[in-house]
Amino acid sequence: AAAASLSSVAAGIARGVCRHFLAAGYGCLIEVPLRSGRRADVMALGADGEVVIVEIKSGAQDYRSDQKWRDYREFCDRFYFAVGETFPQALIPSEIGLLVADRYGAAAIRDGPVHRLAGARRKAVSLRFARLSAMRLQAVLDPPALGGL
Amino acid sequence: AAAASLSSVAAGIARGVCRHFLAAGYGCLIEVPLRSGRRADVMALGADGEVVIVEIKSGAQDYRSDQKWRDYREFCDRFYFAVGETFPQALIPSEIGLLVADRYGAAAIRDGPVHRLAGARRKAVSLRFARLSAMRLQAVLDPPALGGL
Repeated sequence: AAAASLSSVAAGIARGVCRHFLAAGYGCLIEVPLRSGRRADVMALGADGEVVIVEIKSGAQDYRSDQKWRDYREFCDRFYFAVGETFPQALIPSEIGLLVADRYGAAAIRDGPVHRLAGARRKAVSLRFARLSAMRLQAVLDPPALGGL
Repeated sequence: AAAASLSSVAAGIARGVCRHFLAAGYGCLIEVPLRSGRRADVMALGADGEVVIVEIKSGAQDYRSDQKWRDYREFCDRFYFAVGETFPQALIPSEIGLLVADRYGAAAIRDGPVHRLAGARRKAVSLRFARLSAMRLQAVLDPPALGGL
């Protein structure tokens, strides 16, 4: 993800991706900052603790201009690209997980390899996910709470 | 906590307690079901992974009718009661953590003892906190997501 927030196209894909993972029992969070300074477009956390990162590509140009996706693999057990229905899927190497999504859901074209996180990294990533989720929820439910009361 | 949701008095105290812990860098979640079948009124998760449970007592009768708070200690590193300003604090044993709260914040009268969770329990509680936070956030941001699409 670039520094800016998700574009409207990407936001729609993110919504569909989150619905997909929710249906499979995962908790999902968008735009999750990582210790590396990068930011995961979608992070999903499974009932068994599995950490999934999904990088959204809104189009071929977006894909070609970002070859840094490998950096995300240090922070997850599984990695996927998520693209819209008109994206040229042949651009994406066949060994990488791929989701096709719209605003209403997503389908897994293929899963990528599992590369299990080490314990300390898993703990740090899961804890970040947990606190950030709760703080964002609190910001929605009690907006003044984050504004210094 | 009883099976029903927080009363309005308790909800106000919960809000203040969450503001208190947020200001200290904790993520907070209310009404968190535990594997024991009970439910924590407030659970807070610190930057270092510390798990805090707060049980809200809206009045003396509520306190006297519930002597099961010890059950919560299996699920947290620190435990507090939280009460309103008119609650008779002398009822609460001096070795138990105590917060006095209103809708706008809380003050720690005293911290209780730390009883560190074992690793497996900590992992399970933190994971539950993380997924539940994210799912509740998603329910707010994308209400149809939880309704079966």
